[in-house]
Amino acid sequence: MTLTEIIRKKRDREALTAAELDYVARAAADPKTPDYQLSALLMAMYLNGLDTRETVDLTLAMAHSGDMADLSGIRGVKADKHSTGGVGDKTTLIVAPIAAACGLKVAKMSGRGLGHTGGTVDKLESIPGFQTTLPPDAFVDAVNRTGLCVIGQSGDLCPADKRLYALRDVTETIDSIPLIASSIMSKKLAGGADVIVLDVKCGSGAFMKTPESARAMAKCMVAIGSNAGKKTAALITNMDRPLGNCIGNAIEVREAIGVLSGKGPADLETLCTALAAKMLSLAGAGDDAHCLFLAKDALQSGAAKEKFAAMISGQGGDPDVAAHPEKLPVARYQTQITADRDGFLTAMETRQIGEACALLGAGRQTKDDVIDPAAGIRLYKKTGDPVRRGDVLAELFAGDEALLPAAKARFCDALTFGETALNEVPLIFDTVNA
Amino acid sequence: MTLTEIIRKKRDREALTAAELDYVARAAADPKTPDYQLSALLMAMYLNGLDTRETVDLTLAMAHSGDMADLSGIRGVKADKHSTGGVGDKTTLIVAPIAAACGLKVAKMSGRGLGHTGGTVDKLESIPGFQTTLPPDAFVDAVNRTGLCVIGQSGDLCPADKRLYALRDVTETIDSIPLIASSIMSKKLAGGADVIVLDVKCGSGAFMKTPESARAMAKCMVAIGSNAGKKTAALITNMDRPLGNCIGNAIEVREAIGVLSGKGPADLETLCTALAAKMLSLAGAGDDAHCLFLAKDALQSGAAKEKFAAMISGQGGDPDVAAHPEKLPVARYQTQITADRDGFLTAMETRQIGEACALLGAGRQTKDDVIDPAAGIRLYKKTGDPVRRGDVLAELFAGDEALLPAAKARFCDALTFGETALNEVPLIFDTVNA
Repeated sequence: MTLTEIIRKKRDREALTAAELDYVARAAADPKTPDYQLSALLMAMYLNGLDTRETVDLTLAMAHSGDMADLSGIRGVKADKHSTGGVGDKTTLIVAPIAAACGLKVAKMSGRGLGHTGGTVDKLESIPGFQTTLPPDAFVDAVNRTGLCVIGQSGDLCPADKRLYALRDVTETIDSIPLIASSIMSKKLAGGADVIVLDVKCGSGAFMKTPESARAMAKCMVAIGSNAGKKTAALITNMDRPLGNCIGNAIEVREAIGVLSGKGPADLETLCTALAAKMLSLAGAGDDAHCLFLAKDALQSGAAKEKFAAMISGQGGDPDVAAHPEKLPVARYQTQITADRDGFLTAMETRQIGEACALLGAGRQTKDDVIDPAAGIRLYKKTGDPVRRGDVLAELFAGDEALLPAAKARFCDALTFGETALNEVPLIFDTVNA
Repeated sequence: MTLTEIIRKKRDREALTAAELDYVARAAADPKTPDYQLSALLMAMYLNGLDTRETVDLTLAMAHSGDMADLSGIRGVKADKHSTGGVGDKTTLIVAPIAAACGLKVAKMSGRGLGHTGGTVDKLESIPGFQTTLPPDAFVDAVNRTGLCVIGQSGDLCPADKRLYALRDVTETIDSIPLIASSIMSKKLAGGADVIVLDVKCGSGAFMKTPESARAMAKCMVAIGSNAGKKTAALITNMDRPLGNCIGNAIEVREAIGVLSGKGPADLETLCTALAAKMLSLAGAGDDAHCLFLAKDALQSGAAKEKFAAMISGQGGDPDVAAHPEKLPVARYQTQITADRDGFLTAMETRQIGEACALLGAGRQTKDDVIDPAAGIRLYKKTGDPVRRGDVLAELFAGDEALLPAAKARFCDALTFGETALNEVPLIFDTVNA
């Protein structure tokens, strides 16, 4: 078997065998394999596609191309979630405590942010003292003790995916459903959970711009998880506007504590309880309605907030933050954005809002950029809201006053106003089960 | 403009502009451009194609990516030919002298052989003393004096094509009509001739296996030449069997001298006079029938053979070789292959026969291999011939006895015998004019 034979087959629209896709993953993980052959293969895969069986086989091969997390020491059902990337998406900070409060085990490896979306690990690191790097034994112990632990990706996880993703990024082969799905799911499979709930975003802030393309992506990922023996389901959710009202790092932790304290905002609470309920039903805790009741009860009883504090404590942070979020970092400078007309906020270019937030210091343009945990945006109006001249639309926060003007310009550019109210758009478009 | 934008456009089946294709050629000629982006673009071009206008623009851009031959010092109509690669194809050695004898100027840069096809430069170098490297002034002088000169490619000719061809070779993007046509024609355009005649081979020894695909290739190349302001035409010819009866280097020179001396073989003489006649008619020497008469007359009168001797003399070789081909190198070892049954030779895998010849030492597997000028094959039977048990089918020649068995096995494996005679297949399938 050679890589050129495999390139030729995919170029000629033939399906690749499991053995051939395994060869591809091993070749990608081998630094001696030339980039030019991998990128020619990726373009052939992009243009000629991979069927479901091929996508499953490629994903399994990439998952096994490096270290696999060993969660065998954890007692109980291990649940994981993944969002395809959104602006203001702090669901992990809420869903993981709810799931743990309901008896699931959440042993999660999360990413850092790059570009216009923030990373869960960056958000958690805004909590004073919080450690996102733990040795494998300590990770397993923390989950057994408290029910949840969220760390950064460690070890040599999916090196084949790492190589292929880096090449796709510079060869215009990113937005392919089988390639995206296999990249995400290879990391989930290597992460070792039994239950995987996916949050597939769609809209102006997401890769997938329409519910149709998001549904195709969701079906592909659910098929991969199911074929790999995992209980898997996906929600297709709206990313035509940011999720919740806060975007940044410490400011998102503060908003998550708000939801865990029963103080909303409603869209974020609704999505988090839906995701947690889906985890519970996949884990066998009952039907969807019962599991939604369990998830909401964990919020209302304060049990989820206790789990959040326990997680902070288990990872070296100050658990008092859960009760006193004012202990989180606060930015020195701020500016308000006000409406200059009456009407309705009819659209938000969500991606641009994420970019405005990165300009404030809350995100990275390159891997080596340092994040300002206190920088961010608080929204007072979102898509569909009526506005009156002079209303505060948003507040922008930064540690350096000089960053405010460019971020403000980018933010304002992302807003569209109109005269008439919009039809209501659902937050959750659909659910895809196996 | 960036290469990634260009990759995205071709990926999405959009036509590239002349400016974009110029950018591609400049990027390919720039060593700083990463291979992985060029190979992703090549796969997108392979799968989504280039229309005729794009192919013309890419070819012109590649032709201008390095040095252009300056033939302005040559008086008269400058004619060139190109064959898409065959086994036993020594037509340049005959066509160039005929054309020169009829008053055209042939200032030709030729390639070396790699793989299963031989190169004209390698064949000429089997003539004692023959020089295939000349300074530009001496090249122009030789053509003005004798009417013809054939040298190896010199200078920095088409560096963009060199880079792209090397990448195509290792990424399964070779056999694309627009990519092959632009690669060949960029070198022809950089070579500076006014008249270009193409010999597009089709059959078991050629890239193009069917007359239909060869016709598409011929049309594409003729369109490029015409759009670039060159008088261009193509013959589509049979490569289901080797051309002539000799394959190798010195042995092919000897066969070429045979044709120049009026001693055939017939297929080789027919094709050479047809190619030379097409050159003449494109140069304005008259209609096809008249030009064919001129070409045949140049052979019969001995004028073409005199030009051949003059070329050898002008390039430092021993011109006596034309009258005394026994002065050419002769191999020390030989073996005969005989028929073990009565019947008909019904097929020859021409490519394998070329490979058998390379195994004898007459070809190169890698650029650095040294060629044995005396090694080669003489055929006594070709496709369609009746054979009787014990008939000699071929003789194999090598400078090292140890090379004979493997070459013999490869040669025998290329032959198919049957009980019944075949229908006659034409040597020249078609002519494609602008």
